[in-house]
Amino acid sequence: MSALPLSGVRVIDLTRILSGPFCSMILGDLGAEVVKIEAPGGDHVRGQGHKIDGLSWYFAGFNRNKQSLELDLRKPEGVAVLERLLARADILTENFRPGVLAKMGLTEARLNEINPDLIVVSVNGYGSTGPYADRPAFDFIAQAMSGYMATNGTPDTGPLRTAPPITDLVAGLYAALGAVAALRGRENGGPAQRVEASMMMSMMSMMAYLSSNALATGRDPVPTGNDHPIASPYGLFRASDGDIAVAPSTEVIVQRFMKEIGLSHLLDEPRFVNNAMRVQNRAELNALINAAVAGGTQAEWIARLNKAGVPSGRVQSLTEALADPQVAAQEMVLDVPHPGHGTVKMTGFPIKFSQTPLRVRHTVPDLGEHGREVLRAAGYDEAEIDALIANGIMGAGDPAG
Amino acid sequence: MSALPLSGVRVIDLTRILSGPFCSMILGDLGAEVVKIEAPGGDHVRGQGHKIDGLSWYFAGFNRNKQSLELDLRKPEGVAVLERLLARADILTENFRPGVLAKMGLTEARLNEINPDLIVVSVNGYGSTGPYADRPAFDFIAQAMSGYMATNGTPDTGPLRTAPPITDLVAGLYAALGAVAALRGRENGGPAQRVEASMMMSMMSMMAYLSSNALATGRDPVPTGNDHPIASPYGLFRASDGDIAVAPSTEVIVQRFMKEIGLSHLLDEPRFVNNAMRVQNRAELNALINAAVAGGTQAEWIARLNKAGVPSGRVQSLTEALADPQVAAQEMVLDVPHPGHGTVKMTGFPIKFSQTPLRVRHTVPDLGEHGREVLRAAGYDEAEIDALIANGIMGAGDPAG
Repeated sequence: MSALPLSGVRVIDLTRILSGPFCSMILGDLGAEVVKIEAPGGDHVRGQGHKIDGLSWYFAGFNRNKQSLELDLRKPEGVAVLERLLARADILTENFRPGVLAKMGLTEARLNEINPDLIVVSVNGYGSTGPYADRPAFDFIAQAMSGYMATNGTPDTGPLRTAPPITDLVAGLYAALGAVAALRGRENGGPAQRVEASMMMSMMSMMAYLSSNALATGRDPVPTGNDHPIASPYGLFRASDGDIAVAPSTEVIVQRFMKEIGLSHLLDEPRFVNNAMRVQNRAELNALINAAVAGGTQAEWIARLNKAGVPSGRVQSLTEALADPQVAAQEMVLDVPHPGHGTVKMTGFPIKFSQTPLRVRHTVPDLGEHGREVLRAAGYDEAEIDALIANGIMGAGDPAG
Repeated sequence: MSALPLSGVRVIDLTRILSGPFCSMILGDLGAEVVKIEAPGGDHVRGQGHKIDGLSWYFAGFNRNKQSLELDLRKPEGVAVLERLLARADILTENFRPGVLAKMGLTEARLNEINPDLIVVSVNGYGSTGPYADRPAFDFIAQAMSGYMATNGTPDTGPLRTAPPITDLVAGLYAALGAVAALRGRENGGPAQRVEASMMMSMMSMMAYLSSNALATGRDPVPTGNDHPIASPYGLFRASDGDIAVAPSTEVIVQRFMKEIGLSHLLDEPRFVNNAMRVQNRAELNALINAAVAGGTQAEWIARLNKAGVPSGRVQSLTEALADPQVAAQEMVLDVPHPGHGTVKMTGFPIKFSQTPLRVRHTVPDLGEHGREVLRAAGYDEAEIDALIANGIMGAGDPAG
């Protein structure tokens, strides 16, 4: 097996909760050695979500491929340990509010003194400059502020939050990309620099053509629920045993769709002759399509339409999606044996590499589990480590402790 | 100005529409030289969305920092040009359906022959293996199949599509990250390899703790709209002139929130004494909070709550978000002067680099605008280029043509 893309890269990870840990997990998944530094007591997420055999599967899903060091950064001796680790690291990841790192003594100047090659990666709510820089962040608020919520939903629901913490995740993903790009730049003669991604700005970059059109026209998009604002036919239709989702993307695909369901002739009628007319007469057209597809099952239509090149599928519940045969073929649900906690299921790796497939190299760490190992590798001797533990600077990493 | 993170990297880009062009634009934003190869007539998106002075702002928003070459790949002479460009490229990006590249003659073996160092990056619907590999992809279907739609919405709406083409974008973003990681690996002695991200699997990786809990319990999450399923108080509350969004993430923050709005005493009552009781008695609590915040304006409460460490904001429409002072401070709306098309507005760069800030180095290309330039750089002489144009293999890049 060849080395993973980020083999040999050392990440010191101060992130906690969600956006930052997602970023550092991605770096770990890609092959970096990630040391997660946890405050005494550990990342709050260890106590959140459903637990099995004492382990939060939510925590597990965001903290594989990391090692854990429990360290008290409120004490100067703790910061001294951190500085010694940073001296030999490539990347520092953090998701404190802007300014917190500096208050800890780790100003830009100090970090540069400790390690001029260090890339500092920050995930935050709004960016570290501007009028909202100091605001505390939370996914729901970033969804609201970014304009995203106003486009999600229907005219009846009004602005609607979406369930996944999408702004945390998109910001974490952008930060990981920024980290790898900055690393590549540094390794090719560029500077070691600070990289930042914020939840609000990351989400704004996902508004795509909704923003393009809003900027071009000055008008807001209207929430349209499951109807595509400017395409027809499009949406959910009723097969004999459930809905099918159909999304013909071009006129040619619309023709194929109508042919497959035996309604080609409708496209000659003035009311359905082009997309504009079909959008105008959407209700009539949908009724005719529903009558036609009622004659077959979901599975039959989905197979037949896809074969004809018409994008089609069904609305799966999350448990159905997780059990989907394609998801199995793509190894997107992993069974990770975890000593003492049974077999943990978690989402797999969405990036597929042909030569160096990603894998779980480190199961989810117990709190402080790798403290001794990490400090030894940084040159600490056993007596120094014992003293740090005895003085309450770092955790002993005892699973029972 | 230092070199950008991907300076010197050459990308040949066969992508069209949305997911792939987002990936290649990110690579271009990061500093790569991206040559977008367009089929005769150009990317369909050139004709979509709102146009100003003949330019689609949707196309502009996904195709800055690229050069354009119009090339007919249905003709062997066109494929020969492509092969010559690939011979000196680092990365090939494509978002055809799996197998299309091979049908064009560009099998894995052939690509390896042309350029053993080439990294091939694919964005597709479901992944290139598994039972759905051959299905045509579309965002709406990937939203439906991934389990995402089933979690979006309220019990009244049922499964709900979200307006932004989120699965295209997340897959494009993962593919860009995979491309940069593979490049970094290759530059450090690893293999040049194929990288892939699919819309369905990328979206599944964004289901976060919803998936963790579903895997742990076997139960599906219930769509809860704007209520957080397991936190109270949380959501939208009515100030005197509009709603405020409030998301206290911990018990300490709940206490601060209740103190700021003068309701600390409620937390001593059995019905609101802890989060579990507050979730159970959410309606009562929300009514009391609404009564309390009715005494102040949106802006007053948002400033005051954030200052006290309580994440707070408001639901902005997309045009409000685009005009937000923080968005301006973060330069997330760019004014790009575009010769012949006025000043084009587009979304800025969500990744901030301290030393090498990203910028628009190439405005959106006219169709085939850089054909001659790209072929010259690849060693073609003028007579060869003229012949390719005369024979209809490549476009002349004449804006009037």
